[in-house]
Amino acid sequence: MCQLLGLNANTPTDLVFSFTGFSQRAVEHKDGFGIAFFEGAGARLFVDHHSATESPVAQMVRNYPIRSRHILAHIRKATQGGVALENTHPFQRELWGRYWVFAHNGNLTDFKPKLHAAYHPVGQTDSERAFCWLLQELAKNHASLPSVAHLSETLAELVPQVARHGTFNFLLGNGEALWAHCSTRLHYVLRRHPFASAHLQDDDLTVDFATQTTPTDRVALIVTEPLTRNEDWIALTPGELAVFVDGQRAAL
Amino acid sequence: MCQLLGLNANTPTDLVFSFTGFSQRAVEHKDGFGIAFFEGAGARLFVDHHSATESPVAQMVRNYPIRSRHILAHIRKATQGGVALENTHPFQRELWGRYWVFAHNGNLTDFKPKLHAAYHPVGQTDSERAFCWLLQELAKNHASLPSVAHLSETLAELVPQVARHGTFNFLLGNGEALWAHCSTRLHYVLRRHPFASAHLQDDDLTVDFATQTTPTDRVALIVTEPLTRNEDWIALTPGELAVFVDGQRAAL
Repeated sequence: MCQLLGLNANTPTDLVFSFTGFSQRAVEHKDGFGIAFFEGAGARLFVDHHSATESPVAQMVRNYPIRSRHILAHIRKATQGGVALENTHPFQRELWGRYWVFAHNGNLTDFKPKLHAAYHPVGQTDSERAFCWLLQELAKNHASLPSVAHLSETLAELVPQVARHGTFNFLLGNGEALWAHCSTRLHYVLRRHPFASAHLQDDDLTVDFATQTTPTDRVALIVTEPLTRNEDWIALTPGELAVFVDGQRAAL
Repeated sequence: MCQLLGLNANTPTDLVFSFTGFSQRAVEHKDGFGIAFFEGAGARLFVDHHSATESPVAQMVRNYPIRSRHILAHIRKATQGGVALENTHPFQRELWGRYWVFAHNGNLTDFKPKLHAAYHPVGQTDSERAFCWLLQELAKNHASLPSVAHLSETLAELVPQVARHGTFNFLLGNGEALWAHCSTRLHYVLRRHPFASAHLQDDDLTVDFATQTTPTDRVALIVTEPLTRNEDWIALTPGELAVFVDGQRAAL
């Protein structure tokens, strides 16, 4: 199984603290890592089929505070598809003139959807297949970029059709909203004023967010397992689809 | 104007030496840089809207010898589209289950093609618009991935339709072949046995390729302006489309 990490904020935020803790988990999840940062409409995706503990790319990400309002990261323990760059999450495609980024934790069996339109997997994972199908169906349902609410409505119809094939915890982002679906395990925390200190679960590291933020900042962090010891993490329930906009959970 | 750098080889090759010289040119071309490495079917794209001389991402690329058979790089001096991540080359899309990467040097005026299918620009550049149109038309002409020869034939029909709008030097790669089109300036060199030393134009650096290669290695390097002083660089002629496969120039 893999681990997911997502950030959605109302102001560009750096992920150095959280990514440091997250990448510790790559000792066990050693078959690659990837992280996508949206910056405006642009996105950059750093992927490596080396472990996040060893990868020079991951080291650069830990040291270079790229500030972004939308971040998706993934550390991989291969289930379907070999250890290769083309099988490394997150995956990225373009739809309606926006980049879409997707990362999956889980395993889908007998999921062989008809991919008859513009999105085809490059690698061999069930995950990329699911992503291509979701985009294909979104494109069928809307002629151009709809509102986040309409997108959420369509996704709520599409996602169960994939989820019945197995475990389908995922993060999906388009630089405006971040969707999180829980099949088995996914947690989130909302950080806002007054900001406190947080202590990493996996590393002997504390950060005082109060010194790094302004009172209007809002940050949502979504992960497979809570990253810190002293914050109020909320577990999504199996089958739950959540959407985060501007660092807050939005109505579906 | 921007500068282009492409590598096509029959064996995974690192670009540290050439990228070091190339990124020196970013003092003048300071509005971002990008580099794409194919590794098997996978691709990784490093982009930054900081200059290649200052970017921590470029520094990582100079220090981390990523070995690849297909590399495309670009340093940008903005003409159309602001200095922003979404306007930074190379651009990447997927077609027929393969990644395609595109970088452009030049300026197209009044180029407003109909983009009625699956490829839409995220940023504001003429370059991304041209790339989207090329992929749209390739997709119309072939139902699935054709041979390199058939692709070259189709491109030879499509490219002049864009090139009549202005300067259209470009590199296009899909991890199998690298196409280079010259409107004004583009040079290439073929490195093969017996390998010699090369001395960078822009930096006080010499490398002896003989110590780093085997007799069967073949490397094609394509750049806007020759990178080294003592190699036989060949200038493409205006209007010429070239394709490189396995480190050699292939017939069109």
